[in-house]
Amino acid sequence: MVTPDAAPAAGTEPRVGVVGLGLVGGSVARLLHEQGVEVTAHDATASTRAAARAAGLRVVGDVADVCAAEPDVLVLAVPLRAMRAVATEVARHVRGTTVVTDVGSVKGAVRDAVRSAGLDARYVGAHPMAGTEHSGFDASDPSMLDGARWAVTVDGTTRREAFVTVLRLVTGPLGGTVHVLTDDVHDESTALVSHVPHVLATELLGVVADAPVRDVARGLAAGSFRDATRVGRTDPRRTEAMVTDNAAWVASALRVVVRDLEQLVAALESNAPVGEFFDRPDPVRGPADAPGTGERLRVVLDDAGAWRAEVTAAGARGAVVVAVEDDAVVVA
Amino acid sequence: MVTPDAAPAAGTEPRVGVVGLGLVGGSVARLLHEQGVEVTAHDATASTRAAARAAGLRVVGDVADVCAAEPDVLVLAVPLRAMRAVATEVARHVRGTTVVTDVGSVKGAVRDAVRSAGLDARYVGAHPMAGTEHSGFDASDPSMLDGARWAVTVDGTTRREAFVTVLRLVTGPLGGTVHVLTDDVHDESTALVSHVPHVLATELLGVVADAPVRDVARGLAAGSFRDATRVGRTDPRRTEAMVTDNAAWVASALRVVVRDLEQLVAALESNAPVGEFFDRPDPVRGPADAPGTGERLRVVLDDAGAWRAEVTAAGARGAVVVAVEDDAVVVA
Repeated sequence: MVTPDAAPAAGTEPRVGVVGLGLVGGSVARLLHEQGVEVTAHDATASTRAAARAAGLRVVGDVADVCAAEPDVLVLAVPLRAMRAVATEVARHVRGTTVVTDVGSVKGAVRDAVRSAGLDARYVGAHPMAGTEHSGFDASDPSMLDGARWAVTVDGTTRREAFVTVLRLVTGPLGGTVHVLTDDVHDESTALVSHVPHVLATELLGVVADAPVRDVARGLAAGSFRDATRVGRTDPRRTEAMVTDNAAWVASALRVVVRDLEQLVAALESNAPVGEFFDRPDPVRGPADAPGTGERLRVVLDDAGAWRAEVTAAGARGAVVVAVEDDAVVVA
Repeated sequence: MVTPDAAPAAGTEPRVGVVGLGLVGGSVARLLHEQGVEVTAHDATASTRAAARAAGLRVVGDVADVCAAEPDVLVLAVPLRAMRAVATEVARHVRGTTVVTDVGSVKGAVRDAVRSAGLDARYVGAHPMAGTEHSGFDASDPSMLDGARWAVTVDGTTRREAFVTVLRLVTGPLGGTVHVLTDDVHDESTALVSHVPHVLATELLGVVADAPVRDVARGLAAGSFRDATRVGRTDPRRTEAMVTDNAAWVASALRVVVRDLEQLVAALESNAPVGEFFDRPDPVRGPADAPGTGERLRVVLDDAGAWRAEVTAAGARGAVVVAVEDDAVVVA
């Protein structure tokens, strides 16, 4: 059971468990360790456990041992395809007031896995918008999370103590800027800014791979192609998992892309004007503003639970968390 | 008339004229100036001329003055939409053995403009695969051309002396690695590695601009979105010109993209396997090999002109120029 005592007071560092020490889990564990947080970590692969120990982390032999350490927060940082099995394993061993969170890139799918495992009362979703085209503990790097934007996701059942605990971890030792969102707003947004870009990068590489001019094209490829295809060089299984776990939102966004490109092709082939296509991004062409809306809002974490709708509505307008109290959250 | 004497002997720096001092023309002029080449430059905009003078370039007041300097090579570095007018102006004033080249991103369209102007006997196409999302002389930077891959394009009428002159300029003081190509192979290849990436970057920004979750999406956008959209933030008129001047090749590549994405959407919506989509880029997923084919070929620049087909066939296989002689070119 999560009780109000589960949220460590502001200023006290929580103890953290991390299951999965790949690119993101490894970076989270190393950053927390650097920040003086007590971390207990586990990875299913022996060589990764050895590398993590060599990097100074406290590594235990299985998921049960992580749970036995009774961390304030346990971070599920395994691949999406392993989430269901690992959540079930955690549910079997978790005890005390441990809050469960994750760093998965698709929040609806992770919540389903967590709910199936019976962990939903302990759960608050989280997702750092940070990564590289590499993977594995060897590629992990605490500086990857420098100034990262995080989504923290809540639904109608999220407990306020668990929420406050995760917010304190992410805005505190992890140094993140937090958007509090529903799973759907998160998954629609990341379809647009992450999953569809991964699909298009993969498609660009695929078109070149099949082209008769492939060798010349690769020879001439410069910055625009390198940048456009960077994330298409990622582990294809990881990208496939992200895309299929968020299939509905990705498919919906891709339908828009297909429609727009068909119109552009028709215009190009009939020598019709195409200026609108190139002007359409004008509202977002410049650099994004500083995070937040500029409008400060203190949301009291009331017993009735109205705070959940209030804080996610502000999140949907672009607000970020600027202060975390025991019984309230300030967004702006 | 271009005569055999037009090609400066190896080791002698040619004198160069540059018309248009934007991002690419400015970078070319500054790099040549740094390399000790005598450059005579012009730009239609007075403030650009002033900035170029302040940067130490020799700047003249009109295109006629550039022609009057009788450079060995005159580089047309104006926007594609201005190419026809400027080529006509050059044709009116060019004299002596001046060879005309350009740095335009679409070679078929530039050759049409040059031919209409009656400059084809002097012309060899060129295109450095280098750029940034910025434009204008202030953004120009000789280091942008460091180690750049260049395409040099020839057709059935290209004169060998003009060809040798341009090759010596690009592989010499400009420090480029040269692929010799036909206009079509160039334009198909750059549709794939430059123009289509520009279209997809523009489309990604456009989809976000129209999305109900626009503010959150921008707030969450991280490296994958930033890289995928970088060239979509370029001057939309410049991108539009590139795309429309290469409309046939771009439309043909986009038709493939539309077909592939439609198949992916259908698979995602019916929960069918999508692994093939993500595996398809495997042959080009790794870094490109070092430039060239590894097979050394000496092409004699024969009077009958068979060298044109021979050198562009090698170019289409990925060969690059490794040596330039008065009467032969070595590719590998």
